[in-house]
Amino acid sequence: MAGSGFGKNIRISTFGESHGTALGVVIDGFPSGMELNPEDIQKLLDRRKPGTSEATTQRKEDDLVEILSGVFEGKTTGTPIALLVRNTSQRSSDYSDIANYYRPGHADFCFDAKYGFRDYRGGGRSSGRETVGRVAAGALCKKLLSQMGIEVMAYTRSIGDVEIDYSSFDKDAITRTPTSMPDVKASGRAMELIRKCREEEDSIGGTIECRITGVPAGVGEPVFDKLDALLAQAVVSIGAVKAVEFGDGISVSRYKGSENNDNFIMSGDKVTKKTNHSGGIIGGISDGSDILLRAHIKPTPSIARTQQTINKSGENIDINIHGRHDPVVVPRAVVVVEAMCAIVLLDLMISNMSSRASYITDFYNK
Amino acid sequence: MAGSGFGKNIRISTFGESHGTALGVVIDGFPSGMELNPEDIQKLLDRRKPGTSEATTQRKEDDLVEILSGVFEGKTTGTPIALLVRNTSQRSSDYSDIANYYRPGHADFCFDAKYGFRDYRGGGRSSGRETVGRVAAGALCKKLLSQMGIEVMAYTRSIGDVEIDYSSFDKDAITRTPTSMPDVKASGRAMELIRKCREEEDSIGGTIECRITGVPAGVGEPVFDKLDALLAQAVVSIGAVKAVEFGDGISVSRYKGSENNDNFIMSGDKVTKKTNHSGGIIGGISDGSDILLRAHIKPTPSIARTQQTINKSGENIDINIHGRHDPVVVPRAVVVVEAMCAIVLLDLMISNMSSRASYITDFYNK
Amino acid sequence: MAGSGFGKNIRISTFGESHGTALGVVIDGFPSGMELNPEDIQKLLDRRKPGTSEATTQRKEDDLVEILSGVFEGKTTGTPIALLVRNTSQRSSDYSDIANYYRPGHADFCFDAKYGFRDYRGGGRSSGRETVGRVAAGALCKKLLSQMGIEVMAYTRSIGDVEIDYSSFDKDAITRTPTSMPDVKASGRAMELIRKCREEEDSIGGTIECRITGVPAGVGEPVFDKLDALLAQAVVSIGAVKAVEFGDGISVSRYKGSENNDNFIMSGDKVTKKTNHSGGIIGGISDGSDILLRAHIKPTPSIARTQQTINKSGENIDINIHGRHDPVVVPRAVVVVEAMCAIVLLDLMISNMSSRASYITDFYNK
Amino acid sequence: MAGSGFGKNIRISTFGESHGTALGVVIDGFPSGMELNPEDIQKLLDRRKPGTSEATTQRKEDDLVEILSGVFEGKTTGTPIALLVRNTSQRSSDYSDIANYYRPGHADFCFDAKYGFRDYRGGGRSSGRETVGRVAAGALCKKLLSQMGIEVMAYTRSIGDVEIDYSSFDKDAITRTPTSMPDVKASGRAMELIRKCREEEDSIGGTIECRITGVPAGVGEPVFDKLDALLAQAVVSIGAVKAVEFGDGISVSRYKGSENNDNFIMSGDKVTKKTNHSGGIIGGISDGSDILLRAHIKPTPSIARTQQTINKSGENIDINIHGRHDPVVVPRAVVVVEAMCAIVLLDLMISNMSSRASYITDFYNK
Repeated sequence: MAGSGFGKNIRISTFGESHGTALGVVIDGFPSGMELNPEDIQKLLDRRKPGTSEATTQRKEDDLVEILSGVFEGKTTGTPIALLVRNTSQRSSDYSDIANYYRPGHADFCFDAKYGFRDYRGGGRSSGRETVGRVAAGALCKKLLSQMGIEVMAYTRSIGDVEIDYSSFDKDAITRTPTSMPDVKASGRAMELIRKCREEEDSIGGTIECRITGVPAGVGEPVFDKLDALLAQAVVSIGAVKAVEFGDGISVSRYKGSENNDNFIMSGDKVTKKTNHSGGIIGGISDGSDILLRAHIKPTPSIARTQQTINKSGENIDINIHGRHDPVVVPRAVVVVEAMCAIVLLDLMISNMSSRASYITDFYNK
Repeated sequence: MAGSGFGKNIRISTFGESHGTALGVVIDGFPSGMELNPEDIQKLLDRRKPGTSEATTQRKEDDLVEILSGVFEGKTTGTPIALLVRNTSQRSSDYSDIANYYRPGHADFCFDAKYGFRDYRGGGRSSGRETVGRVAAGALCKKLLSQMGIEVMAYTRSIGDVEIDYSSFDKDAITRTPTSMPDVKASGRAMELIRKCREEEDSIGGTIECRITGVPAGVGEPVFDKLDALLAQAVVSIGAVKAVEFGDGISVSRYKGSENNDNFIMSGDKVTKKTNHSGGIIGGISDGSDILLRAHIKPTPSIARTQQTINKSGENIDINIHGRHDPVVVPRAVVVVEAMCAIVLLDLMISNMSSRASYITDFYNK
Repeated sequence: MAGSGFGKNIRISTFGESHGTALGVVIDGFPSGMELNPEDIQKLLDRRKPGTSEATTQRKEDDLVEILSGVFEGKTTGTPIALLVRNTSQRSSDYSDIANYYRPGHADFCFDAKYGFRDYRGGGRSSGRETVGRVAAGALCKKLLSQMGIEVMAYTRSIGDVEIDYSSFDKDAITRTPTSMPDVKASGRAMELIRKCREEEDSIGGTIECRITGVPAGVGEPVFDKLDALLAQAVVSIGAVKAVEFGDGISVSRYKGSENNDNFIMSGDKVTKKTNHSGGIIGGISDGSDILLRAHIKPTPSIARTQQTINKSGENIDINIHGRHDPVVVPRAVVVVEAMCAIVLLDLMISNMSSRASYITDFYNK
Repeated sequence: MAGSGFGKNIRISTFGESHGTALGVVIDGFPSGMELNPEDIQKLLDRRKPGTSEATTQRKEDDLVEILSGVFEGKTTGTPIALLVRNTSQRSSDYSDIANYYRPGHADFCFDAKYGFRDYRGGGRSSGRETVGRVAAGALCKKLLSQMGIEVMAYTRSIGDVEIDYSSFDKDAITRTPTSMPDVKASGRAMELIRKCREEEDSIGGTIECRITGVPAGVGEPVFDKLDALLAQAVVSIGAVKAVEFGDGISVSRYKGSENNDNFIMSGDKVTKKTNHSGGIIGGISDGSDILLRAHIKPTPSIARTQQTINKSGENIDINIHGRHDPVVVPRAVVVVEAMCAIVLLDLMISNMSSRASYITDFYNK
């Protein structure tokens, strides 16, 4: 069953393996007339590019994007936009060992159970490199959203037990710190922790937060395609995410109604809320407040220290995984969260354009 | 945009409003030849039925299901199964007030923003009664799963700060306690808390846990239709759910790789794992261990104590919401979580049947 | 696999068997705010109702529609609209014979091959009664289309070798003649032919034409979801349709380019065409001219005269099919063609609302 | 709205413009373990390649396919297969004229109406070159079908008024004649006609027939996803197709039931039919007989002789279209019809694998 496609009005289909020829995405249904040049996409791809700091794998990939279709004279045409990134730094020899055993915490065993065999080089399709296509597609959606005053901003909230301090929130730091943290000091402490993990041949988890500002009220389809439900699918579909929260998230399970309810209040002639425990979504529909979610990410499963596992012959063995691995997934995943949120939001904003009969008749009768 | 449908191989379409004529579901793609009688469905519907204890609203609804199509001589035919539950205890007069204002924590304002007006009676489509169709559909999926040795079991893990004690886990208690807790003592304490909330004209949140046993390895489609990604959509789509965790969930953000990785180990000739931090899913695909997830649920937004809000004329007002409301959503939502998990799992198990070319050629060449 | 759903923005899910409890449809994604009362739907259902003339089966069904959800205070709410028609004149005893053999021209054998058994009463789900849900859904779409100046008009073009004469085209006759022909004289001759078929214990085929006026240019998605491609699926999905043509249809295979091309020409400040060989669709997109298609329909397979077939034990047998059958399917199928065309068109018109980036930014930035 | 994707279990997403960088397809959901090398695909691409005879355009394109993903060690992996064909012979200068006017019979005007502007070079996305991705995807489906004894064979049935003679049907001739006719003599006459059209600066239409053998009974989903309904969408979605017929097609509208019904009869212990007027499909489900359909194709709209049209300024003008055009679309479209039929059939065969509850329980309980 096809499982590498996402979205309804705008449908993305990603492809590619970690050590295959290329990765990419086809974006079908993107509207015509938006100016687009490769730099719009490259800027985001560069944020997830490996090899840029101690916090990431030492594999070097330029991840240069090529636009294959769907753009003419600098503008999107409304037809499918195919984006291609060729792999250049495959060292498949690194992976000859793992062909025969199942790495703990990796999908090796599950892929074999499902498909009978697998492209074992660097995790193949289950590698984090799969997200190249997501980020490329997200770049387009972010650009169009920005033209409606909507900003999708994710950042690292914590790595291990190092959390950012909201009182020193510095938006510019997100793209400047190697941790993608909006707090230079916390980032420094996180880098120390990461170095320590490296030394101990270990890895570490963390948390990404995403805030979306400027979303009008009314976006999201009730019942199954709720805004938060689709954001949950989108975010949990990112490898290594093990939990997602909206607004006050897990805390609400201990709240009373009087604590959790956000009171509506007029701010001039605009409806607003006194608090935002709901994270900007009620009943699956945006309420006009900031949308806020958090994704909790597990530590990189590839670690150098000795681990127990089994091989394909069903023998218990000890392994040490060498190679080029991120000691922490979080910093590079920040832009992936942004991308997925942007894709969901734009798709549901389009759906919302036909929510009223009058929207349709007004469009055609004008 | 259609948003009340869910699933690919088996597609459910739910309909109905809290105080409308009827609620129900059409289940399209359910396979032929499974024995089905109304009791199979009624049993689950009775678990979400209102009016059964102090923990629930005092609205009385029998929620009797009628099978309209798709079943012949006691067996499913492979054609759409339409299930209908008529509303019998609408007291729409209770809701005349709320026509003109927006209840805090409810979707009233969002529905108006989206659709221009709303069926305000009891929340209309945004009411928890919407889940009647989900539970009815889930009953069929649970039955077929059970014929493959798969059990989907959800229960209340906590209400407010009252948590179950796993050492006294009693499965039978889930359907016997008014809280749906598998722990009679904890349930007693939770009922006290609920009573206190009622007295204080307030409500309370809680957490539901779901454990799925017997799932073979290999279920789930990589990338966007991961088993956990679709479970996340399914669970967050249930009204009032504000967070979902898989396996160790949010805790993994503080783990090191060496703590979080589950080591594979042979148990006789069967692949198993020493631990199950992953909650039975790696890379979006089942690994043969128990699947474990948790949903965090906000307190019922309808509370009798005075709240601030605005009316449709844009005036700040004070309100007191009377009527028949659950002081806590959790106990009745347990069976909804089970239903949604069963629907996702069966759907992906069908997808998995064509994951290998040999599965297809074997099927047709035999 | 779910196969009883249709449409993307507006998704219909039909259900029900010929001799089951009820038939109906859930329409998900229909926009809010359109006035709707049962008569809007009933009027179209009455056009496909059986028992109204010699041209149809003598089974009497009132086919009264009940609106179960999605309408409040006389207007659609944007949430799923469930429509129900109960069966009242099941005479299942008529069908006890056919449980054991496969009627020529009917889907009996195919259903058994697929599902292992079947609801044999009146053809079950493969009966023409399945179209009740389509017509009910089509009624809503036609109403909204009419508010944009779009008319979907189908009629019987021929029954056997009796064709209408376009020079005496009388639109009002479509709903007045028992044949749904827009030509009273041709209809008279067709009725004679139908009577003769009855006497000979035989049945007859025919052709339905559909003309859609008022469609703006630009509707239809290139490549797979072309306007004509989806109309083709929609029309061929109606039981008994064996061919579909657009514009000049099969004739174009003998044309030269110079004969077939429609020259564009200005009519005042409006783009128009000198001819309409294309039937209003070029490259899968509407060109602003009338859309024209034809569906060719086979004769009713149920005939009283002796036929050869096999039974479930694999024996060759002779059968005579008695019961209440239409001698010709065409007159009652006319409104089904209208319904399906209306559903396709409205769905693609909604898709078209997001074809340009400026449409989206204009909607949200206003 | 995304419209360049097709299929459910196996989902193809095509991309690319006539004179853009590249064309291609992503095939998502194709099962693992099928041997695949580029030649499997190239063989079919070569059948639609331009520049091979007088019957085709003189544009030379090698149409060499590159496999970008989804294949490892010579076998499909179950993950998305991306296939790329780069354009090499773009002469966009040929098309500078047409930027400013609307060619009769082409989608130029419709694209502008929809998207506000268009990639005018060679028709952009509306060019026949769009089918490269379809054929590449079809090659994989055809290969897997052949492993189940199923052959999808299309051929030119007629060009203009030159029809093949079934009594001299020569299957090998299909790939040897420049017309794709299975009749060398008819092909010779057709080539004369084509030459004459060229001389007259004109073009000609024709008909393609497709016969699918070896399909088991039971394939196709009742109601909207009928085998014939999806084949109709698939075939009509091919540019220039204006009609599609199944079995006896339009002739059935003049048949009586006694003429049209195919009698079932035992052939040894196998169910068969005495005739095959239905073209192998009843009630939308395969009946085990050969599946037979015909597509009617319009003449190439690009002709050199003077035509009337309008320009973008809304002026009536005369034009002569020069450049490299096929005088007839039919011969190269034959393999496109095969590809689309193979994609539909394999997809529905997979759907059919979960039609019975016992199929699912047998799969998992073994």
